[in-house]
Amino acid sequence: MVSAPSGTGKTTLCTHVRQTPDLIYSVSCTTRAIRPGEKDGVDYFFLSRAEFEKRMKAGQMLETADVYGEYYGTPKELVLEHLAAGRDVLLDIDVQGARQIRASQEVKIKAALADIFIMPPDLGELKRRLEGRGTESAKQIATRIEAADGEMADWKSYRYTILSSSMEEDLIKFRAIIRAERYLSRRLDLHHG
Amino acid sequence: MVSAPSGTGKTTLCTHVRQTPDLIYSVSCTTRAIRPGEKDGVDYFFLSRAEFEKRMKAGQMLETADVYGEYYGTPKELVLEHLAAGRDVLLDIDVQGARQIRASQEVKIKAALADIFIMPPDLGELKRRLEGRGTESAKQIATRIEAADGEMADWKSYRYTILSSSMEEDLIKFRAIIRAERYLSRRLDLHHG
Repeated sequence: MVSAPSGTGKTTLCTHVRQTPDLIYSVSCTTRAIRPGEKDGVDYFFLSRAEFEKRMKAGQMLETADVYGEYYGTPKELVLEHLAAGRDVLLDIDVQGARQIRASQEVKIKAALADIFIMPPDLGELKRRLEGRGTESAKQIATRIEAADGEMADWKSYRYTILSSSMEEDLIKFRAIIRAERYLSRRLDLHHG
Repeated sequence: MVSAPSGTGKTTLCTHVRQTPDLIYSVSCTTRAIRPGEKDGVDYFFLSRAEFEKRMKAGQMLETADVYGEYYGTPKELVLEHLAAGRDVLLDIDVQGARQIRASQEVKIKAALADIFIMPPDLGELKRRLEGRGTESAKQIATRIEAADGEMADWKSYRYTILSSSMEEDLIKFRAIIRAERYLSRRLDLHHG
C-alpha cells in the first residue's frame, strides 16, 4: 500500500505502476460524485451513501475513510481474491486507511503487506505543486497543506519512505521496492511452496 | 551480503554490481595463491598465512573461513569506514561467513545488514554450469556440488532469495533489492537524519 500527502504525485505514480505485470490496482469505492473523464469500476466504484454504508456494516470494507464529507473505502473480497491467486495488489490509501489495514486480522493481508510512504520535499514545494496543477481553490490548498503536515508525521509507520524528487526518480524507486519485496525469503514460501 | 553455491554466477553478478555508484565491493583477504589475471587489492588482498593469522587473532576480521585448506576473510576496519561514510558495502561471502557476520555485535554492521541468497535452479543445472566453465576437475565439481547441497539449506536465513535464471534477470533482481533497501524507513534515520 502506498500513501502520500495530496500533491506528492502519488496518483500519477500509481497510474504508471498499474502497467506493471502481475500488479493489480485495487479500485476503491467512494460516495463522491463521478467527475468528467472518470469511469465507474476503473477510477472508483461509485456508490450511493446507502449502498456504501450497507457494505461497510456487512464488514465488506478493508478500511474506510471520511474525507471532506465523502466516504472512501477498499473492497475486501476483491483484494483477498487477487492475493489468493498469487497476484500483488496495490492499494492507494491515506494514512488513516493505512492504519486500519495494518490493524487487520486477516492472515492473508498481514502476510502480504508492504507499505510505502511518499514524502514531499517540503510543505512549500507541496504548495507550489498543488498551485501548479490548478485544480483546487486557495482554500482547498490550505486545507490540504494542513492535512499533509499531519500525514507526514506518519512516515515511520511505513516500511519504506521515498523522498519525492522527480516523477521519473520516484517511479524507479517505487518499482524497485515492489520488485524487491517479491524476493523476500519469507514470501518465497507463499509463492513457490 | 550475498551468498550462493559455487557456479551460481555470484562472482559475475558481483562484478556487474561493482559498477553501481555508492556501492563498495568489500575486497576479502586470502592465503591462496594469486592466479593469472588477478590483482592484489582488487580481487583479494593476498596475505601469507602468518599475516592472516596475526590479523585474525587481533580481531581485525569480520568473518573468516577455511575453504579447501586456504583462509578467506573480510577485513573489518575497511567495512566500518565505508559504512561510517554512508556508503553501502557489498560482501561476497559463503554461508559460514554469513552466519558469523549475522552474529556480529558491531552496531553499525547490525543496522546496515541485508542478506541475499542466490539459489541455483537445481543441482543438475549447477553441475552443467560448473562443467560448462571448464575451470574445475570432475573431482572438484563433485566436491562443489556436495557443498552446494549443504549451502542451499541455508536460504531461509537470508532476508532475500533470488531463484537464479539468466544473468540478466538475476542482475535486475539484485539491483532492485539493493535499491529498495535504501528506502527502508528505518534506514532513513541513518542517511538523512
